[in-house]
Order: sequence, then C-alpha cells, then structure tokens
Amino acid sequence: MVAENNLSVIRLEIPGRFRDRKGTDSMTEIKKSIKIGLAGLGTVGSGVATILKNSNLDIIKKTGVSIELVAMLDLNFQGKEHLIPEQCLTTSNLDTFLATEMDVVVEVIGGTKFAKEVIEKALSSGRHVVTANKALLALHGKEIFQAIAEKNLQFKFEAAVCGAIPIIQTIEKALPQNSITKIDGILNGTSNYILTRMHEENLGYHEVLPEAQRLGFAEADPTFDVDGLDAAHKLAILANLAFGSYIPFSDVYVRGIRSVHSMDVKMADRMGYVIKPLGITKMKEGRIEARVHPTMIPKTHPLASVRLENNGVFYESNYSGPGSLFGKGAGSLPTGSAIIGDILQIARNSSVQNCFAVEKQFAIATLEQITSRFYIRLMTIDRPGILSRISGILGDHEISIASVMQLESGAPLVPLTMMTHQAIEKNVHLALEKIQSLSEVQEEIVLIHVES
Amino acid sequence: MVAENNLSVIRLEIPGRFRDRKGTDSMTEIKKSIKIGLAGLGTVGSGVATILKNSNLDIIKKTGVSIELVAMLDLNFQGKEHLIPEQCLTTSNLDTFLATEMDVVVEVIGGTKFAKEVIEKALSSGRHVVTANKALLALHGKEIFQAIAEKNLQFKFEAAVCGAIPIIQTIEKALPQNSITKIDGILNGTSNYILTRMHEENLGYHEVLPEAQRLGFAEADPTFDVDGLDAAHKLAILANLAFGSYIPFSDVYVRGIRSVHSMDVKMADRMGYVIKPLGITKMKEGRIEARVHPTMIPKTHPLASVRLENNGVFYESNYSGPGSLFGKGAGSLPTGSAIIGDILQIARNSSVQNCFAVEKQFAIATLEQITSRFYIRLMTIDRPGILSRISGILGDHEISIASVMQLESGAPLVPLTMMTHQAIEKNVHLALEKIQSLSEVQEEIVLIHVES
Repeated sequence: MVAENNLSVIRLEIPGRFRDRKGTDSMTEIKKSIKIGLAGLGTVGSGVATILKNSNLDIIKKTGVSIELVAMLDLNFQGKEHLIPEQCLTTSNLDTFLATEMDVVVEVIGGTKFAKEVIEKALSSGRHVVTANKALLALHGKEIFQAIAEKNLQFKFEAAVCGAIPIIQTIEKALPQNSITKIDGILNGTSNYILTRMHEENLGYHEVLPEAQRLGFAEADPTFDVDGLDAAHKLAILANLAFGSYIPFSDVYVRGIRSVHSMDVKMADRMGYVIKPLGITKMKEGRIEARVHPTMIPKTHPLASVRLENNGVFYESNYSGPGSLFGKGAGSLPTGSAIIGDILQIARNSSVQNCFAVEKQFAIATLEQITSRFYIRLMTIDRPGILSRISGILGDHEISIASVMQLESGAPLVPLTMMTHQAIEKNVHLALEKIQSLSEVQEEIVLIHVES
Repeated sequence: MVAENNLSVIRLEIPGRFRDRKGTDSMTEIKKSIKIGLAGLGTVGSGVATILKNSNLDIIKKTGVSIELVAMLDLNFQGKEHLIPEQCLTTSNLDTFLATEMDVVVEVIGGTKFAKEVIEKALSSGRHVVTANKALLALHGKEIFQAIAEKNLQFKFEAAVCGAIPIIQTIEKALPQNSITKIDGILNGTSNYILTRMHEENLGYHEVLPEAQRLGFAEADPTFDVDGLDAAHKLAILANLAFGSYIPFSDVYVRGIRSVHSMDVKMADRMGYVIKPLGITKMKEGRIEARVHPTMIPKTHPLASVRLENNGVFYESNYSGPGSLFGKGAGSLPTGSAIIGDILQIARNSSVQNCFAVEKQFAIATLEQITSRFYIRLMTIDRPGILSRISGILGDHEISIASVMQLESGAPLVPLTMMTHQAIEKNVHLALEKIQSLSEVQEEIVLIHVES
C-alpha cells in the first residue's frame, strides 16, 4: 500500500508521468514537485500523512503538483509505520530533520515552546511554513511575522483557525476591497458540544462533560477548551486579520462555559434564545472589541444552527455584506485537509502575501468602552421591596431593564431574571457587585452577554 | 472625488508612493499595477466601479496592488459619469475597447451572445478574464475553456456563482485533496425570497411576487429566476468543478417554484420541514445527479436557516467533512466585491490554475437512476376504497409510503398527503400518472422532493 502511493517509488518507475489509477488512457503529468517535512505525527500530523498516503495521486491529477513527504520529526513513530512513505527520513532531532532537502516545514507539534523553535529554525533556513498552531500565533505571531518580514517566504495557517472551515482565505480574499466590521464565531467544538447537549437534552454541565470526554469531544483535562482559551487564541488571530492590527493576547477578554447553569439554558430557550460559546470581535469607535464568553443569541441567528462539535464563523463587511461559514473545526482529517490546501497554495503561488499584522493600529476596547445587552439571574429571598432595591441600583448605574421575569417557586429562593437594554459592561459589573452584597441575594449572580 | 481616488492622477503627483489617507506617517507603496477594462456598466459593473472609486487606496495599502480602470465598454454612460475615472476610455466599440492597453477584461454584460464575443476576443488578444456570467459558463464553458487550454491566461468566475459567497475558491482549495460527494445549494435569491415569505407569512405565490418585484428581489419578468434556470446555470458550474466532469446544461433537471402551493408550504411546516428552492448535485454509483427543484428539507438542515434573498451552499467531502457557506448571492456591491477579489488574485498569482472540466468523465443520472423521498399531495373526493386504490398503485411501482395524512375538511375535496420512503423518481412519475387518471382525483397532483 505505501509503495503504491509513494511518489518517489512511482517516479522511479515512470519518471515524470504515470498511468491513471482508474485505468483509463489519460496520463498524469507532474508539473511541479514540492518536498515537505512533517514536524509532529499526532492527531493532525497523522491526518496529513493519511491524506497524502491515500490521495496523493488524485492531487497530482487535479493540480499537477506532487507533494513529497521527505522527513518526519517526532519522538516516537511506534504504531504509525504505515503512514511513513519509503525513503522518508524519520528522526527526533530537529537539526537532522532540517538538514533534509525540503521546501516546506509543516508544524503540527502544538504548544508554544519546541514548536516555536521548529518554526524559527525552519524560517531561518529558508523554508516556507504551514502550521495549525493557534496558540503560537496568538501569543508569538508578532515575533514570527517580524522574523519573516524581509524574507520571500510564505507562512500559512488556515488549519489554525477552525480546521476545515476556510475562514482565513475567505478573509484574505474579501479583505482588500472590504472593511470587515464584525466577526462572531463558535470557535471551540468542545464548548459548543457541551452547550448544545445541555440545551437540547436539558442536562447540566457536569452531566455532559464526562460523556463528551468519552466520545472524544473533550480532552481528559478540558481546561483549555471549556475555559475559552482555545477560542480566544483563534479570535485573536481573526481580529488581527480583519482589522489589520496586532492584538496582544492578554487584551482578549475570556470567560469559559463552566459557570453556565442549566436553569439559564432553559430560561434562554423560553425567551427564544440559545446560549453559545461565542468569540466576538468588532470595530467600534476606532477601538477593537475582542472577547470570548457564553452568549445568548436569538434562535434565528445564523450561528444558532451550529450544533454539537461543529464550528461556525459569521462576519459583516461593507461591500460583501454578512456571510457565514460552518463546518468541522477540528479533527485529524479535516485539519489535515486544510494543511494540504495551504501546501498546494505555496506550490502554485510564487508570490508571497503574508497578512498577519505586527503593528498595533487600534486600541483594544476596555470594559468601560464595551456595551452589550445582558441577561442577569439572581436567586433572592422573596421580601417586599427587593425588586425596587435591585432596579434602583441598576438605574444608578445607567442600566435600563428591558424585561423582568420572576418564576413562581415553592423553594425559599426565587429566581429573578432580567434582560437589560444596551449597557456599559463596567457599569454592569459595578452594579452587580452592589446587588450581590444585598442580604436577600443568596447565590452568585449569573451574567450572560446577549447579542442580537 | 474622482480625482482623489484616480490612481493615475495620484501617481503623477507622487510617483510610486503616496501618503496614507488617514494622515499618519506611514507610506503606501504600489508594488504592482494591473490595468483592467470593464465591459458592462450595469448593476454589477457599477458595483465594481463604485468599489474601485471608494476603496482603491485601501486596496493598495492592504495588498500593494493598484487596480487601474483604463477602459469601459457600454452603449450608454449617461448618469454614470461619477463612476468613470479621469483618463479612462469610454466606448461602445469592442475593438476600440480592446485596443486599449490592459491586463484583464472584466465581463459583466451578461447574456450569451455579445458577452461571448467580448470574452473570446479578450482571450485571443491575450487578456485574462474575470466574469460574473453564469449562463455563458453553463452553456458555453466548454468552448471557452478549450480556447484557453493552451494559453497562459487566467479565467476567473467567483462572482458567477452566488455573488459574495466564496464557494468557487472554497471548492478550488478543498478539492485537490478531497472528494466532494454532494452539494446542495440555495442558488437563487428571488426564489428563496418568495418561498421564505410564503412560509413565514402564510402567503401565496401570487401575493408575494408583486411585492418581491417592488422591492427589487424579482425582475419584472421573473421567468429566469422562478423557473429555476438561473439556479441551474450555477448548479451546472458547481457540479463541473466538484466532479471534474463536463455537465451539458440540457442534462440538468429543472423545475421552478411557480407551482408551489401555500397549502403544501403549510403541510411541510407542520411536518417539521421547509420548502426551499434547491440545486442538488451528487455522485452516486459513478453517475452525477444534477437537479434543481423545490425541495422539502428538515428545519434542522443547515440550509433551512438561509432566509429571504440570501443564498447558501452546503457540501459534503471525504476529508473536510460537511461544510456550508451563506451570504449575499447577488447585488451590485457584493458581486462587485467578488470580482475585485478575482482581479487581485490574478495580480498576485503568476501561476495559472483553470479548473473547469471540458471532458465528460461521468454520465448524468436519468430519472430511472435517481432516488429520493417524495411528498405527494392530491385532492380527492372522499369515496370508500380510494386510499387503498392509490396505495395499491404506489405499491405496484415499488413506492413505499412512510406516512399518510388526511385532513378533515368541510369541502367536497379532501387533501390527502403522503411522504414516501426512498423511491425511483421515474416510478413515482409513472405511478402519479395513473393516480391522476382516477376519477376521484380532481386537481393536479403535487409532487415535491424531500432531502434529509
């Protein structure tokens, strides 16, 4: 099997040309050959190797480009021998790996330490780079793009943001002639899976998480996903591209989904909303908002239909108008496919267009500058005057209430839910601090952003 | 205003470099200049000219590419003077137009006669071509792509299929490494607008059409849109790219939305479905299905949320998995923006990749080979034994019924609706011919495809 698809072998047999697999008379010609080194043979790396093993002949037929996997870098290749082409070097030593003749280094190691070294050395030795590493770009994108600014090298990262969803190339192609004004994204499959199950099956966070872990939709340690960091990395990259301005990762506002109660999921549903793990970035009054948090959106919002582990991105722009892209945000083959798309673009495109901004052109909005609508739920002891006291505090902070709902309950604590009009987020935090300190308010107040 | 944005003027003042409009100290450098001729200054052509007028400086800043509009071809420029840059030739003569020095001809005339001549002469005089002309590609794509097969010229048509939705580049980038197995699309905004209003407001076709015309969502003569031809043109192009096989336009099965009754829209809603104007193409048993017809899809289908005049495309592929793209399928600025995206790709990309198939690699499935689920509604006189006779005929044709509903009605005619399991379409047509001839069956039987 390996031999059949191994290009170097085939090319030895019928140099330059070989017979169509389907047995027709058409001949396939290799117009261009590109040598790649694969750094990392984990989930994504295995996806890349699998697709090359199974479909390289199709790729040649469709594009004339032959992708040759000439070296692999990993600590261990056990159990993955079937993915290693003949004549492909395997090594755990970065210098040995880079000493191989190759055009492109594919970095799919992940993390921000060794992966950074791989990329830096790949670039300084004159190799184009393709990566799926969102954390590295969000945290060190500035240094990396500064390092290649003067080099005629391509650096591509479609796979880093939402796997198989072609959001990077969509932004790249739409952006020169458009002003993007907003991007909303469901950028993390684990969080979306958990909230979808909570919503559709009326389950609690702690009921869904173990099942998500069993099914492979959540890691053993889900922190990175459910606390919003993974989504925030992707959002920082999208905001950078959309607004052409460097986004320091520490300026991104992040709240995960651990604190989402099933009671609020139910309330949202009743009000015609669904709670989604949203990344939101927009340009407003010359400042960039960049935030990740559980958000209530109307059931008619395009992102409301993005269910389970799927990802979706919604954008607004001045000429193209609103648009959205949905699909597989992660996984071995979807992400591997995105990486191969990038490799082929490098092979076919001699001109270089690297568009990650390294200069901070715009300020990032602070909580004093961000306005939103909010859903607030508090559990109160039902005493006379409590609603008036609470609404008084909100009023003092210029927060006006759009609707209030108090559900009847036999329990000593009564849930009181409110939906605000647009309010300054900082004021909301200050008001809720005061309300939390009232003796009638018993549990931690729930605050959820609402987007329309 | 024109002068400020007219590049040739600016370039005379500060050759090669000019000051950033925002007044900062950063300087913008033109790395590459591309001269375009615009054939047609109708809706789409005006969009292109408007964007260039307003945003050319932004385009240069973001890409280093200066797009110079050097000639315009139209019969009449009255009322559009503000869109014509200084030093831009305007003419109604094709030879004069093409005698101008230019790199790219943008064909946005529409139709298949003069537009074809423009494109053929543009190619034979060595110009790259960008077009929004879906009819021309669907009907004459084979000749056009054969004509450029040996030339080092680019032919781009992102704007021809669903305006601002980047479906062509998404297929182009995903395809080499993926096998696309299915594409479903809402490819015509007029039809989707009408069916959406019928569904959401319980209106009839003839109530919605005049309003759609008044609002500009339907032409005075809506034939082309509501009879499915426009969608079929786009579907033929998508199927060609997806399966790498030439699709003769006459092989595409087309049914428009004129015959959709509000009663069936209501029934669909009750059953959890919505009727959408779908283009469907899939590869099944080595044959390509390509068909456009009103189709019932579950409300949970990604395309069910594509409302009003918006378009959407859903695709399935072996590695990338399912994905979808929604957005503006038409309009002056969205389509103009897609055209400018293509021009910039030509400017930035020296390698040529023209991927429209001219050889018919696969057969097109006939009605004998197409299977689907179907919704059937007939109006019967309520006589004993009629249901048994109808289901007998269906059974004789190997059509099995998944559900039946007969609504009570005071009227002499009773609507009888049935949902079938998968059945061969030809058999369904034959069975319905027989059922139609029963004396109890009074009006024309309604048949709607169902996709899940």
